[in-house]
Amino acid sequence: MLIWKRHVDIYDELALVDTCIRSSLKSNLHILNDTLSDLLATGGKRLRPALVLLSAQFGRYDRDKLVPLASAIEIMHMATLVHDDVIDDARLRRGRPTTRSRFGNNVAVFTGDFLFTKAFTLITQSTTPENMHLLALAIKAICEGEIEQYESRFRSSVSIRHYLKRIARKTAILFELSSYVGAVEAGCSKQTSRLLRKLGFDFGMAFQITDDILDFTGQQAVMGKPLCSDFRQGVYTLPVIYTARDPRYSEQMRAYMVKDDLTEEDIAGVGRLVEQSGGLEYAKNLAMTYVGRCRSYLDQLPDKPAKGALSELLEELVERKY
Amino acid sequence: MLIWKRHVDIYDELALVDTCIRSSLKSNLHILNDTLSDLLATGGKRLRPALVLLSAQFGRYDRDKLVPLASAIEIMHMATLVHDDVIDDARLRRGRPTTRSRFGNNVAVFTGDFLFTKAFTLITQSTTPENMHLLALAIKAICEGEIEQYESRFRSSVSIRHYLKRIARKTAILFELSSYVGAVEAGCSKQTSRLLRKLGFDFGMAFQITDDILDFTGQQAVMGKPLCSDFRQGVYTLPVIYTARDPRYSEQMRAYMVKDDLTEEDIAGVGRLVEQSGGLEYAKNLAMTYVGRCRSYLDQLPDKPAKGALSELLEELVERKY
Repeated sequence: MLIWKRHVDIYDELALVDTCIRSSLKSNLHILNDTLSDLLATGGKRLRPALVLLSAQFGRYDRDKLVPLASAIEIMHMATLVHDDVIDDARLRRGRPTTRSRFGNNVAVFTGDFLFTKAFTLITQSTTPENMHLLALAIKAICEGEIEQYESRFRSSVSIRHYLKRIARKTAILFELSSYVGAVEAGCSKQTSRLLRKLGFDFGMAFQITDDILDFTGQQAVMGKPLCSDFRQGVYTLPVIYTARDPRYSEQMRAYMVKDDLTEEDIAGVGRLVEQSGGLEYAKNLAMTYVGRCRSYLDQLPDKPAKGALSELLEELVERKY
Repeated sequence: MLIWKRHVDIYDELALVDTCIRSSLKSNLHILNDTLSDLLATGGKRLRPALVLLSAQFGRYDRDKLVPLASAIEIMHMATLVHDDVIDDARLRRGRPTTRSRFGNNVAVFTGDFLFTKAFTLITQSTTPENMHLLALAIKAICEGEIEQYESRFRSSVSIRHYLKRIARKTAILFELSSYVGAVEAGCSKQTSRLLRKLGFDFGMAFQITDDILDFTGQQAVMGKPLCSDFRQGVYTLPVIYTARDPRYSEQMRAYMVKDDLTEEDIAGVGRLVEQSGGLEYAKNLAMTYVGRCRSYLDQLPDKPAKGALSELLEELVERKY
């Protein structure tokens, strides 16, 4: 992320997280090392570790405890990405072939399990059983979110409430836990921990809604995956759900939803519909509502340098193009 | 297993494990409940929980701690089975359709993750961070074993040493840990814990070799999956490896190994070769060697009722037909 260049202290801590991740993910198996180097090379925004570390800076920042914890959370996230790609039959992520497409489902499944196990191993060394329990619940929520998403594929009647519940499970809960365990491990007050927890959740919601908008408006080259990839797989996100519920566009949108072989022209048609119906606009506004809530939590937090960094992170989230 | 009928005390404890597993595996998601009931209905031998509980009976048996621990280990095992089936494209396990074939890879992957997470959650409540760490290492070994097995598929030059290392990772290490954590949690002496640990490992080796023999000699109806399923998938187990290294049979066996579309006649041919070459015999003898080692560890253990049950378990392992 751009903001790290302006916040050298966080940038340096995140570099330690990267080193920790790299050193934990060594294996004697040739093929596993290949898949892991591939994963590491694709990078990622490291948002969850950033939330852990920034939240911890509101208390007593203990690097030796926090860097492994932040790394473990990122490794958990990497595990869900690898498994996610098995589900989606995804061929590209962040512009590079996925583990699944390079090595097959088989290797992808156990690479994900390997990552989970590594994450749990790291976590048992760096946090309390209570936090460990909370993190396990977060992963459970992600699994339920992914299964629910699969179950409701191609279902044209998905409600906005349903969508919000899904993205909470899929994304926001792990963000929530990241900021919360960071705060708790650093011994922040109850009030500060509570604010950071809420901030993490709403940040996650805004992040996922923005992600879903970018699936329509992003540039393929920058996104590193085909546009409208969710729609192609029958996963209907907020702009589509909104459009399908608007009487003026419902019929047209539902025609695309039930169509068997979508052409590129159809996909372009879907893109026009979510624009015309105001579905994209609605999603952007909702993302901004969550960002607004994050700002109000920020305002209530004690004055610390991390506050500035979190504030800029929010700006960047809203303006991001990938 | 038959022996549980003769050991009512263990049978009752295993029934508690089943109840614990059932109550942990509830989900609000319809589809997840379906896959989990399916998994639970297929049963399984519950060997790992039995090892945990029997080992603990050499010390101070604390049911409230041990039943959740034994359940967690079984849930971990169930998770690896579900993921294993994604890899193998397996359609049947224990005579029932696999999660993968009923619900697709997608659901199978996250059902497995859900199970892992549940297991870790249960474990954090019932054991020390040290044991937790050991169990995570066992799962890591299973992942590595599975990936390695996939990597060496259709490789006709696999050595016996290679095979033994693979089944240690795939199977024996979790058996080893089961008996070890049972012993440690019950406060057994170092010597007793060490013996039980070794017994678990060798039991696991004997169990897996027997499993691999049954893939050739078992009855399809009893096994609940097609015969020679490993060979069909390019996974070469001990009887095949032995045969391929015998100059008298090597050429014939390697011809089957490189053949693209194996007919049922070919499969029957493979079955005859492993019989004629003495490959099956060799595997049986090796399994008996491991069983013999288990018996010698048993002899050195203090006299407790669990000793009799373990001894019968060994008998049953050797004679099992499924």
